[in-house]
Amino acid sequence: MSSATDYSQTDIAVQVLRARRAARELARLSADQRNQVLLAAADRLQARETEILKANREDCESLEHQVRAGAASVALLKRLKTSSAGIDDMARQIRDVARLEDPLGRVLSTTELDDGLTLQKVSCALGVVAVIFESRPDVVPQVGSLAIKTGNGLVLKGGAEAQQTNRVLVSVWHEALVAVSPSLRHAICALADRADVARILAMDRDIDLVVPRGSNEFVDYVFQHSRIPVLGHGSGICHIYVDSAADLNMAREVIVDAKTQYPAACNSVEKVLVHKDAAAEFVPELVSVLQSAGVEVRGCPQTAKLLPRSQIIPATEEDWHTEYGDLKITLKVVSGMDEAIEHINHYGSRHTESILTRDSRAAELFMDEVDAASVFHNASTRFADGFRYGLGAELGISNSKLHARGPVGLEGLLTYKYKLHGSGQTVTDYAHGKRTFKHRRI
Amino acid sequence: MSSATDYSQTDIAVQVLRARRAARELARLSADQRNQVLLAAADRLQARETEILKANREDCESLEHQVRAGAASVALLKRLKTSSAGIDDMARQIRDVARLEDPLGRVLSTTELDDGLTLQKVSCALGVVAVIFESRPDVVPQVGSLAIKTGNGLVLKGGAEAQQTNRVLVSVWHEALVAVSPSLRHAICALADRADVARILAMDRDIDLVVPRGSNEFVDYVFQHSRIPVLGHGSGICHIYVDSAADLNMAREVIVDAKTQYPAACNSVEKVLVHKDAAAEFVPELVSVLQSAGVEVRGCPQTAKLLPRSQIIPATEEDWHTEYGDLKITLKVVSGMDEAIEHINHYGSRHTESILTRDSRAAELFMDEVDAASVFHNASTRFADGFRYGLGAELGISNSKLHARGPVGLEGLLTYKYKLHGSGQTVTDYAHGKRTFKHRRI
Repeated sequence: MSSATDYSQTDIAVQVLRARRAARELARLSADQRNQVLLAAADRLQARETEILKANREDCESLEHQVRAGAASVALLKRLKTSSAGIDDMARQIRDVARLEDPLGRVLSTTELDDGLTLQKVSCALGVVAVIFESRPDVVPQVGSLAIKTGNGLVLKGGAEAQQTNRVLVSVWHEALVAVSPSLRHAICALADRADVARILAMDRDIDLVVPRGSNEFVDYVFQHSRIPVLGHGSGICHIYVDSAADLNMAREVIVDAKTQYPAACNSVEKVLVHKDAAAEFVPELVSVLQSAGVEVRGCPQTAKLLPRSQIIPATEEDWHTEYGDLKITLKVVSGMDEAIEHINHYGSRHTESILTRDSRAAELFMDEVDAASVFHNASTRFADGFRYGLGAELGISNSKLHARGPVGLEGLLTYKYKLHGSGQTVTDYAHGKRTFKHRRI
Repeated sequence: MSSATDYSQTDIAVQVLRARRAARELARLSADQRNQVLLAAADRLQARETEILKANREDCESLEHQVRAGAASVALLKRLKTSSAGIDDMARQIRDVARLEDPLGRVLSTTELDDGLTLQKVSCALGVVAVIFESRPDVVPQVGSLAIKTGNGLVLKGGAEAQQTNRVLVSVWHEALVAVSPSLRHAICALADRADVARILAMDRDIDLVVPRGSNEFVDYVFQHSRIPVLGHGSGICHIYVDSAADLNMAREVIVDAKTQYPAACNSVEKVLVHKDAAAEFVPELVSVLQSAGVEVRGCPQTAKLLPRSQIIPATEEDWHTEYGDLKITLKVVSGMDEAIEHINHYGSRHTESILTRDSRAAELFMDEVDAASVFHNASTRFADGFRYGLGAELGISNSKLHARGPVGLEGLLTYKYKLHGSGQTVTDYAHGKRTFKHRRI
């Protein structure tokens, strides 16, 4: 049965310290043992389905009251609700992570510095990672499985609206961990108090990475208030550039998909740039199909000229900086690819940018010169996602260029250390020319 | 001949923007072309030796006045001074970087997501990197060569004390760049005004990485005042743990090397932890040899008990937190390796930690459990250095676990992007089960 979860009962600093110790123990386990924890958790998750759904119903009922009172959004409620199929999905994702290769202790390079002096660069866990999220109960199994696979301690701070659901989900992890060793339980700790966010962000010595998953405003808040490295992304202002050599039927389909399939996603397209030579034919057709799909279209003056009077809203400077996250889009006619690249590098959020063209040389140039985590040729921006990329599970999406970029899986929770094996060497011998380095790559 | 260098004449935002554009041009060059820029610069550096030494003499003379007036340190003056041999070293280092493999456009992984939908993870330049440094003129050739090799723009902010020397060194880069294309000149820009530091740190949209090289206080200032990712390290509190199974002769030699070979270095040892079973024999011997070498020794109460009265200074809590950077050291007797690991993980700066033991299983455990960028077995902590590690040239040393850790060479200036080549795919087809992903690793 489930063991009780120590929700905020213990001082957070103590919990984080315990998580760090338990993570060391976790990293010492064999890959098989860590995978067994994962598989046990997947089984227990499905075995406790009734309990999870009951907790989730309670959370949803509380939130429904708030939605009716106008204190919470329907979108939040939607993201909170899970189902029997949802739980099966969570279990499947955990099993997917168990199947991935062991990421720990991989020798990334070996250099013989001198006789009996060998340097290895070896992958290892970060230490303790904090994930701060809203609603979405599937975050608990997802990041839990990544943390256990990589030997990291995990501090989970979920939203108050998901407290009952998260409590059961976290206890599933505790069950699976305790089955191996009682002290492993501390590897995952859960907090639910709003004030804990500030406490987490202040622990720059003890927490190695913060992953905020929530609204743009919240992610920006974390970026601004943390001295801990942050893996996340604020806005997703994604562009599609329709080249003069584009297949215009394909372009129409890809743009409609990228805008309408799930407009709230960070990888949905917000701006379309059309080469002037394709504009006269393509723009009226695109605007018509988008408007039929319920999309509000804005455009630059040149776009407007190609359309019957007042069919679209004139674009303002602010439009180019705005992620709508909604059925809205802004169009611009550009003189050529250079202008498109300059525009994207100036206004884009370095998330995902796509070029539609039959000209593969133009595509390569665009993909090299556009500064973004994901650059696509003839594909919808909506493909930028850890599951679609085949990463197993997604820790988050990073718009930063450092550490991990784009959709991030296991590798976001890893670092490396240099291990040097010697036989009593001193640098004095090398400084005085008594010995010289070999630096032989092995 | 040298072309004039646009030292702070142009608005810094314009210079950074130009550096970004020039970097794109640089990254478009073939590896051979980028290497030719490097080799040309190495040649020009040696050809302009007289000019460089003259500029350096002028800088040194100005600084000498300040040293005499008590307004600058002798150490700063020492680091500023270069020589004919120093210039040859700079040229050799540039040629070493030219010989390294091309780091750009390396395919890190390929996944076939579906028929005609292939994802590649490809290495690329960060964009624009700012390096802020004091004295040490060799930083200009060193980081300049790394930036050109990796196709990055570089903003160099040197100290006022090295202004004449840096001006000539930067003009050497400009000469070599302009020989390929006039606009490439903007890839490296140089600033010398103190107020430029704050301006650089505020440009989080346009500068991708800041590398501070200077005093701990300065590095901490940059960490605290920048929203741009920082590659650097504050203090280096390095430990050596002498295990019960250590070769005590080796231990003595390694510790003396690690403390006295260059006490101001961040990788010199500051604290020695001795296993209680080795303490009675080893501590008196070690203290004697360290004191003969002019080292001031502090110790815990158990250390003091092993020595004649008042031979050492009692260690305070503050000692464990302090990087002396000087001929000072603090000793502690520990009950065993667990205590040593706990102590290091609590007080260490995650820079470099070494274990001295004949027991290779103990060494592995120590190296796995100690949380530091470099973990050594039977070697002096002073080996933690980009040159000694064979990295070609050193961008800096990072105490952060993210992006790049420990001594950092070329890889610190690289990131990756995901390139997806499709044929008009939409996610709608996959969401509706019309198609499923293959996720085949190639």
